[in-house]
Amino acid sequence: MKRFKKEKYDDLGLDTKSPSNGYRALNKDGTFNVRKENVSFFERMNIFHSVVSMPWLQFFLILGLGYFIINIVFASLYLIIGTEHLTGIYGTTKIDQFIEAFFFSAQTITTLGYGQIAPLNLAANIVAATESLLGLLLFALATGLMYGRFSKPFATIKYSTVAVIAPYNEINGFMFRVVNPKSNQLLEVEVNVNLSIKRENSDLRDFYSLELERSKVVFFPTMWTIVHPISQNSPIYGLKKENLLEKDAEFIVVIKAFDESFSQSVYSRSSYKAEEIKWGEKFAYLAKRDESGISIDVGRIDETFAVDLN
Amino acid sequence: MKRFKKEKYDDLGLDTKSPSNGYRALNKDGTFNVRKENVSFFERMNIFHSVVSMPWLQFFLILGLGYFIINIVFASLYLIIGTEHLTGIYGTTKIDQFIEAFFFSAQTITTLGYGQIAPLNLAANIVAATESLLGLLLFALATGLMYGRFSKPFATIKYSTVAVIAPYNEINGFMFRVVNPKSNQLLEVEVNVNLSIKRENSDLRDFYSLELERSKVVFFPTMWTIVHPISQNSPIYGLKKENLLEKDAEFIVVIKAFDESFSQSVYSRSSYKAEEIKWGEKFAYLAKRDESGISIDVGRIDETFAVDLN
Amino acid sequence: MKRFKKEKYDDLGLDTKSPSNGYRALNKDGTFNVRKENVSFFERMNIFHSVVSMPWLQFFLILGLGYFIINIVFASLYLIIGTEHLTGIYGTTKIDQFIEAFFFSAQTITTLGYGQIAPLNLAANIVAATESLLGLLLFALATGLMYGRFSKPFATIKYSTVAVIAPYNEINGFMFRVVNPKSNQLLEVEVNVNLSIKRENSDLRDFYSLELERSKVVFFPTMWTIVHPISQNSPIYGLKKENLLEKDAEFIVVIKAFDESFSQSVYSRSSYKAEEIKWGEKFAYLAKRDESGISIDVGRIDETFAVDLN
Amino acid sequence: MKRFKKEKYDDLGLDTKSPSNGYRALNKDGTFNVRKENVSFFERMNIFHSVVSMPWLQFFLILGLGYFIINIVFASLYLIIGTEHLTGIYGTTKIDQFIEAFFFSAQTITTLGYGQIAPLNLAANIVAATESLLGLLLFALATGLMYGRFSKPFATIKYSTVAVIAPYNEINGFMFRVVNPKSNQLLEVEVNVNLSIKRENSDLRDFYSLELERSKVVFFPTMWTIVHPISQNSPIYGLKKENLLEKDAEFIVVIKAFDESFSQSVYSRSSYKAEEIKWGEKFAYLAKRDESGISIDVGRIDETFAVDLN
Repeated sequence: MKRFKKEKYDDLGLDTKSPSNGYRALNKDGTFNVRKENVSFFERMNIFHSVVSMPWLQFFLILGLGYFIINIVFASLYLIIGTEHLTGIYGTTKIDQFIEAFFFSAQTITTLGYGQIAPLNLAANIVAATESLLGLLLFALATGLMYGRFSKPFATIKYSTVAVIAPYNEINGFMFRVVNPKSNQLLEVEVNVNLSIKRENSDLRDFYSLELERSKVVFFPTMWTIVHPISQNSPIYGLKKENLLEKDAEFIVVIKAFDESFSQSVYSRSSYKAEEIKWGEKFAYLAKRDESGISIDVGRIDETFAVDLN
Repeated sequence: MKRFKKEKYDDLGLDTKSPSNGYRALNKDGTFNVRKENVSFFERMNIFHSVVSMPWLQFFLILGLGYFIINIVFASLYLIIGTEHLTGIYGTTKIDQFIEAFFFSAQTITTLGYGQIAPLNLAANIVAATESLLGLLLFALATGLMYGRFSKPFATIKYSTVAVIAPYNEINGFMFRVVNPKSNQLLEVEVNVNLSIKRENSDLRDFYSLELERSKVVFFPTMWTIVHPISQNSPIYGLKKENLLEKDAEFIVVIKAFDESFSQSVYSRSSYKAEEIKWGEKFAYLAKRDESGISIDVGRIDETFAVDLN
Repeated sequence: MKRFKKEKYDDLGLDTKSPSNGYRALNKDGTFNVRKENVSFFERMNIFHSVVSMPWLQFFLILGLGYFIINIVFASLYLIIGTEHLTGIYGTTKIDQFIEAFFFSAQTITTLGYGQIAPLNLAANIVAATESLLGLLLFALATGLMYGRFSKPFATIKYSTVAVIAPYNEINGFMFRVVNPKSNQLLEVEVNVNLSIKRENSDLRDFYSLELERSKVVFFPTMWTIVHPISQNSPIYGLKKENLLEKDAEFIVVIKAFDESFSQSVYSRSSYKAEEIKWGEKFAYLAKRDESGISIDVGRIDETFAVDLN
Repeated sequence: MKRFKKEKYDDLGLDTKSPSNGYRALNKDGTFNVRKENVSFFERMNIFHSVVSMPWLQFFLILGLGYFIINIVFASLYLIIGTEHLTGIYGTTKIDQFIEAFFFSAQTITTLGYGQIAPLNLAANIVAATESLLGLLLFALATGLMYGRFSKPFATIKYSTVAVIAPYNEINGFMFRVVNPKSNQLLEVEVNVNLSIKRENSDLRDFYSLELERSKVVFFPTMWTIVHPISQNSPIYGLKKENLLEKDAEFIVVIKAFDESFSQSVYSRSSYKAEEIKWGEKFAYLAKRDESGISIDVGRIDETFAVDLN
């Protein structure tokens, strides 16, 4: 009989010698509960990742601020050169000239170039020609990043809030449910469920890869109930609710899919802790058929009913 | 003897407890016949997917309308500021000033900037500088999406309208034919055929993955006849035409390929219902050889001739 | 003893009932020798593929011509509206006015907008505002395609002109050699060799997948000699040079690799006909070591020397 | 008992008939120590690869220089045509006119188009219209490449400086450690370790693929210790430190991962020479748990302590 492969958990740095219960390695939103220390700023930084992951508001604030600061810098340069070397500057005070130079800079860096203000001498021309080149490059980056953010693939899989232990054929099964709420198709969906439990009389944790009833579907139009059959060679065979709680069990889920809108692979992650498992409950059927075809009530994803376990 | 794996169909939410025959899970164009209910607008929406999938006409109408509305908004702003703070506005009526402001806005947002109209005071300059920044960002998105639409990979595989049951070696086979009508190469083409049939004396459906004579080809220059040999362990072994109709059979096809033009994976889907299967017909040879080489008559993809079944 | 899997060649439409010898399914440059007939223009066309695959000269000619024609069209529109509604048009003859309108159009569509010519009335403004919008969209497409062409991944694998039959361990082997002449890395290189031979006393062809000494390498810095060992279960076991010629043998090679510069998979194809195989020759060693390290003389890729076959 | 597959090393052109010890095939930074000779310039060149791989400073210098040279060329053209055919050129000397034409060219190629200088006659208009078209195309390429560089995926895996031979279960193991210092997630991480050793009494080298305790992890949040168990069928079973040095052993590591920020596969390469292996040392635990959760001290990646070998 093939036993489930037991893997040492500590070599991944996810947990080791945890003094107490209640640890969650993977958060519900797919982020990991591990901090990295003593990584130099240079090693850690990943500008592209930061810019692509930040909220839209922050992105636009940084963009707007950058635009403002660059125009301040170039307005200062035009003032140093002397606004008498720009046509169409009529301000007599320094502050008025600065404002006019500021907007001339804005017209130059966006390559708008109304021309009511224009550079006259060599220095002003050099600054303006440099600014327009810089503008093209910076806006290429900014707009590229904006489109990159907009077209970034992301898995939109929604998980049932709880998992259940329900009868499955002659035995029981660990089950949870996922839906694809979006209209885009997910194809070749692969699911991977790992169990992390505390080793008996030890601070260390063991890490098991769980066998699934089905670990891959070719298409995933709406909903999928993922089942780990608790057969004799399952690491949770014979365990009761209180055992899972004691062992501080965590079921770590990673789903991979090909998203047809983005033509790219996307990954989704979530986890279920022992406290998030309902024993002796079964997920309700969501599919319904009327004259207009089949429909799935996604809002009832968490609906369960009581059943007797095998 | 290895039996075909029978998979419960209902866990995918494609069909369950269907009260009658005549249901099609997958349409000929690859879309699914399942509606999703009670998905919040926020969860459902996928702007990128919508914009990339809509028809070109709709895309250009939205773009044109957006351009029009934004110019209306900014023209109003310039009017609120007062068109006396723009050079080159000669209109004396509000409506004339609005029209001139509208086109000034258009010249600003596209960074065209003729300069025959130009902002004079602080407020007009702020609006114009903001508009040109906004213009760069919005046009980056619009043109990015346009290019994204244009360069979006899509599988262009054409399916034979009908499938056939024809002799295959000593037994019979379920066969259909696909062609690649385009000039681009499809590589590593993988095909996956699933059968959905009604369970006897039940509303539920069973779902089988069908074994194929060949499920992958390294290159696919023109045409491929895909064959499921109806051997003893086929789920349709021994079934007759009327049985397949009774069981409301549906053969669901998913084809994956690497498209060399787009350097990306593409997926194509279609299905054959029991009514779309011709029994005792065979596909005609399409390849022909003359002095200028081999040619395939793609127009004859549906041509069949009668044969005796084994 | 596992026999090589024999596959029917005709279901791929590559060849069937060929009346004579001398047919080549795959050209040396990786294109296929099969024409498709009766494909409607709409089905066949793939604008993206055409634009991305055409030679650079053709691409620039089409671009330049398009720019010229669009300016002709818009210049005509401005003339119909009347050039008196544009400032700065001084031409008195129709032809002069057309030329000035033509360049005004060019300044508008590129969003250059000098402003020495500018629209005055409503009609001219509408045309100019539309033209600048159109310009942004068209140039986004044109420049996107230009960058798409430039950054398109392509396999740059170079094949030895001939293949050889040389001793390999206790038996003989069919061998050819590939090099990566570029400085970019190819990773996870997979090779696939298929043999197409005429069936005895028949016009049909058989298609075999050949077993290789090694069909995948993790990295491919310079050169690789690909070997098909002619063991007892090889389809060419016991065949002589004249047999391969009689059977009009063709060895079809498909190589897949991950190109690190483009971060994408690339495919390369080629083929060897019976005439392009040297019997009793072995490829010369190309690697040489001196104080500055190892070097490979890529220019000697085709160098062979005579050996006795097993 | 399955023996490790021994592969001939020379067919990859990585080394052959090396006259002495001390050769490194793969550098620590993942580049290969093999030169290619007699590759024609045309075959070798890969402009995209060069531009995407060069340092940022070089990229900007080339860009700036290109901008300068193109403006010189077009300024010369305007001078040949005669600056009297441009409005707003006030220079009386050739040098002044050239400078003004230079900046007019800069305003044209960036589509800035202030308009204080503008073309008047046919020739000047043709040059300006051509220049603005060229500008759009060249800047599309330049800014596309800039964004391509910025968004290029790269594996940021950090390797322990040394590898160790440490006890592993009842035997010993060859171990090294990798960390992901960045905040982006790496998924489906696959590792591949190959050993290259000199053949006894020969100049040739043998090449082994090493079996690993675990060769793939689904997610890789922080750190991973990769272990090759030195079992009886390991090619280094029974070898001592001096044997590995004698055989000039090199352990070549290739890691593949899916980078979630870039939604693409990335590869990382490194190698360990016999001199870089510490015998009888074990890597220190880096994970630590306090009230704020788990943390990994990445700075201690190289920390080892002495242990007795089995």
